[in-house]
Amino acid sequence: MIRTHTGGSLRASDAGTTVTLAGWVAHRRDHGGVAFLDLRDASGVVQVVVRDESVAHGLRNEYCLKITGEVSLRPEGNANPNLATGEIEVIASEVVVLSEAAPLPFPIDDHGVGNISEEARLKYRYLDLRRTTMAENMRLRSKVNHIIRSVMESEGFLDVETPYLTRSTPEGARDFLVPVRLQPGTWYALPQSPQLFKQLLMVAGLERYYQIARCFRDEDFRADRQPEFTQLDVEMSFCTQADVRAVTEKVLRAVWSELVGYEIPAEIPQMTWHEAERRFGSDKPDLRFGCELVDLTEYFQGTEFRVFQAEHVGAVVMPGGAAQTRRELDNWQDWAKARGAKGLAYVTVGQDGTLGGVAKNLSDAERDGLVAAVGANPGDCIFLGAGERTATLALLGAARLEIGRRCDLIDTSRWEFVWIVDAPMFEKTTAGGWSPVHHPFTSPTPEYVDTFDTDPEHALSDAYDIVLNGTELGGGSIRIHRSDVQSRVFEFIGLTKDQAEDQFGFLLEAFQFGPPPHGGIALGLDRMCALLTGAESIRDVIAFPKTASGGDPLTGAPSPITPAQRKDAGIDAPPPA
Amino acid sequence: MIRTHTGGSLRASDAGTTVTLAGWVAHRRDHGGVAFLDLRDASGVVQVVVRDESVAHGLRNEYCLKITGEVSLRPEGNANPNLATGEIEVIASEVVVLSEAAPLPFPIDDHGVGNISEEARLKYRYLDLRRTTMAENMRLRSKVNHIIRSVMESEGFLDVETPYLTRSTPEGARDFLVPVRLQPGTWYALPQSPQLFKQLLMVAGLERYYQIARCFRDEDFRADRQPEFTQLDVEMSFCTQADVRAVTEKVLRAVWSELVGYEIPAEIPQMTWHEAERRFGSDKPDLRFGCELVDLTEYFQGTEFRVFQAEHVGAVVMPGGAAQTRRELDNWQDWAKARGAKGLAYVTVGQDGTLGGVAKNLSDAERDGLVAAVGANPGDCIFLGAGERTATLALLGAARLEIGRRCDLIDTSRWEFVWIVDAPMFEKTTAGGWSPVHHPFTSPTPEYVDTFDTDPEHALSDAYDIVLNGTELGGGSIRIHRSDVQSRVFEFIGLTKDQAEDQFGFLLEAFQFGPPPHGGIALGLDRMCALLTGAESIRDVIAFPKTASGGDPLTGAPSPITPAQRKDAGIDAPPPA
Repeated sequence: MIRTHTGGSLRASDAGTTVTLAGWVAHRRDHGGVAFLDLRDASGVVQVVVRDESVAHGLRNEYCLKITGEVSLRPEGNANPNLATGEIEVIASEVVVLSEAAPLPFPIDDHGVGNISEEARLKYRYLDLRRTTMAENMRLRSKVNHIIRSVMESEGFLDVETPYLTRSTPEGARDFLVPVRLQPGTWYALPQSPQLFKQLLMVAGLERYYQIARCFRDEDFRADRQPEFTQLDVEMSFCTQADVRAVTEKVLRAVWSELVGYEIPAEIPQMTWHEAERRFGSDKPDLRFGCELVDLTEYFQGTEFRVFQAEHVGAVVMPGGAAQTRRELDNWQDWAKARGAKGLAYVTVGQDGTLGGVAKNLSDAERDGLVAAVGANPGDCIFLGAGERTATLALLGAARLEIGRRCDLIDTSRWEFVWIVDAPMFEKTTAGGWSPVHHPFTSPTPEYVDTFDTDPEHALSDAYDIVLNGTELGGGSIRIHRSDVQSRVFEFIGLTKDQAEDQFGFLLEAFQFGPPPHGGIALGLDRMCALLTGAESIRDVIAFPKTASGGDPLTGAPSPITPAQRKDAGIDAPPPA
Repeated sequence: MIRTHTGGSLRASDAGTTVTLAGWVAHRRDHGGVAFLDLRDASGVVQVVVRDESVAHGLRNEYCLKITGEVSLRPEGNANPNLATGEIEVIASEVVVLSEAAPLPFPIDDHGVGNISEEARLKYRYLDLRRTTMAENMRLRSKVNHIIRSVMESEGFLDVETPYLTRSTPEGARDFLVPVRLQPGTWYALPQSPQLFKQLLMVAGLERYYQIARCFRDEDFRADRQPEFTQLDVEMSFCTQADVRAVTEKVLRAVWSELVGYEIPAEIPQMTWHEAERRFGSDKPDLRFGCELVDLTEYFQGTEFRVFQAEHVGAVVMPGGAAQTRRELDNWQDWAKARGAKGLAYVTVGQDGTLGGVAKNLSDAERDGLVAAVGANPGDCIFLGAGERTATLALLGAARLEIGRRCDLIDTSRWEFVWIVDAPMFEKTTAGGWSPVHHPFTSPTPEYVDTFDTDPEHALSDAYDIVLNGTELGGGSIRIHRSDVQSRVFEFIGLTKDQAEDQFGFLLEAFQFGPPPHGGIALGLDRMCALLTGAESIRDVIAFPKTASGGDPLTGAPSPITPAQRKDAGIDAPPPA
């Protein structure tokens, strides 16, 4: 190495040592002919004193320097207790400029980063990553990977790489496609997950597989998504749900304990999917605060108020919400409409108990019992939704989260993990058919194996999602391993025999050869790291992310290709006969 | 888990325990109404005794079973010392068929695997992987990954993921391209390596990066290649060549010590590129045997034999080669022609010292001194090449390897590592230009920084390749970190300013902002695992490899796409204005 020490590791005990350091000028201050440099390297920051004015003069921020000098205790009273190296400084005897830096497009500084456009941050990502927060994020992510792998190795899982160039399926509208030069007219697809391959590895008898795998999905990047993302992918044979949950909890426990010092309880609580929907209007409930939904369907049974003559009537209470201005209350209507709802009825509860809002449309009896029925207090606002049950619960669930945010009810220091279990196998599609709530390889629970396709409404899946603070960290299931059951699922969700054969024939065939019962899970690494660091976006825990439109301002990807490239890649070749 | 124990872990000390096992029928023998099953799971094989004939009758190979029974010592004299579980057997009290197996396309057996077509092995990869050898290969590969990561972590390297969807460059004829639905008319490319991103991470100040990264190259799969392959990718700042070599050696030392029990010497020897070419006719010499090339250019100076009036004349001796039949000697001509050479001259040395072959074309003096000049013995055959130096050395180097194989000179128990250093910066292209021997980001050694573009023939690069037993395991270099030097390299290899700007402008720009001196290396994981396992092909250490034409017989990838997919992916959209 061209240096003898890292700057950030120097301590008072090093005083008197001659060291050679290498790093970047984070800051320069001139003081009566003497320059003080904050020299930054990956280990931290150390103060360097340059007494030769002619040398110091030209040193600007982000120059890369090699400094030789003697470690010296700072003069009395000058120690900086906020800095690990704050007791010492290095008196430079030689300063070599390893490389210069042009004027910076933005300061390398954690303050004011909000003022820098994302475009600029990504274009100059190599500067953005020099900021302490971002460098720490990269370090944390590396540690997350390391801890995960340690747990998986100690649990006897094999790290197996599955292909990234694989088969496209006509239904895979979100598949990225890749033309194949050697077989013109044919295409690979980038996998949305290693799902099929990990199941094949179970058929292969490997028993315990894991991989930190890249996944690809060509979709609109709503909701902070990326076209490529990373998941911890796990599959095991001869297991029950409890085994997969236990391994997952070991991983989470190790990561949270080692990286943020939080000890996850010995067993993460479970909640059924239906309970989560009923109480929180969501399959990923944020349990850091209350404001649970109240079911008023029975309460309003036989009501004269037309709006509440619905499949489902429910409510959520906003503490202190009666104090909102008319305009604020109107804003809630806009908020609801932006979500596709007709609106959001409300009843304000005055300090004296007087009810406002739609209370005037209710009968005396309905009015009298309402506050007690929803558990409201004077000064609160009761939001009410009515309509189709699923949509109404979703609206009220979203209102609950909004209330949590607006009323600052969410304790951000809490880590509320919950397993959501017993999800339905299927949900109705808008076209009137059925689609899997998880994916079509998810097994029904044993009691629904025979009836899932005749009584789809009630069939439960042997699935489990892990939710943290209202965010889905991951999901898994016991898989179907019987060819006949898998075929029935394909048929039920509307795949013809030919389609099923064409797309998944190899899986069905593999199931002819002694497939073991198996199950697994996948955890989103980007999301996990964002939660651990408190990052607002997963882009802050990815070294080189894409923008919302899928672009990389740094390299200019994606870009047009030349006619020669097009020809060479066989893009316009007809499919082989 | 649905089992209480793994079968392969049972020992005599477990006798008397009731266990539940799960696994596959590897073999069944019937013996007077009693069936003996070899039950295989990931931990190994255990003998199961099924006394109920009606139960045992239907159990065929590769059925997946759950067995409950009591562990029992085998009857005296029946122990199998070759099996870890050989002292015991499990007397089944309950047999549950978890799934049946259809008749197998090939036996699950390491013997006779050579008779199974590769196509069949890949189509039924999930059966192929059940074979002990293949399962062991997967296990070894997982351990290689784990050991590598442990070393890199303990050396302070950060595991950072770089993008797989990145920018295509017009010159990247081997880039896989990916159309972008959200930006029709534009394409990503899959990276051939993370080279540019890891250099940007150094500019970002991360100082020590590693990644076990997938790389993609759309080329003919000569020489046992795959369209996607895996490398250990490493980069570090403020380092010298020796630092990168030292880290690499730590990795290799740990892997070889832990997995094959071989202790790599404290320092892997170095050999200059020119010495390797001169002595072995290769930049990846196999040092497990001798038969070094002899330079006869001076010896044949002024020869009358037209064939040897050439830039370079060299020889390699085949021990005992004079005993070859005329036909065998002729075969060498065909062998040479298949390699694109005109032929391969030879001189046989009779047991009495009589010279045959082209000796008749030589002068008396040339004949008299030849045997001594090449160090041949009676009975040997001297192969001679003449012509352009590089091509001649390559031909003789290949002949040397062929001699090693045909004469069984290669001690396959040896591990001969060597660093090849001081490679030239450039080699001449057939078009008369110059192209980099490594890649265009490789730095010249300090003494050639000023002259590499005026005296390209002599310029050496600050590069180092690690070679094992004649196979290149990996290569690395100190990189250029100066924008002006990088621009000069681009210009010298024939990139116009516009091309350089278009393709690598972001790297040149990054080098404006205090780039640190840096260097790194990349090691081929597939190759490494193939060497460690003695596999004949890298396909045997990849779970789901492609065939030589890039196909996957299991999933049927690559495949044609539908017009709807084509439209949806924006494949035919014109490039944006």
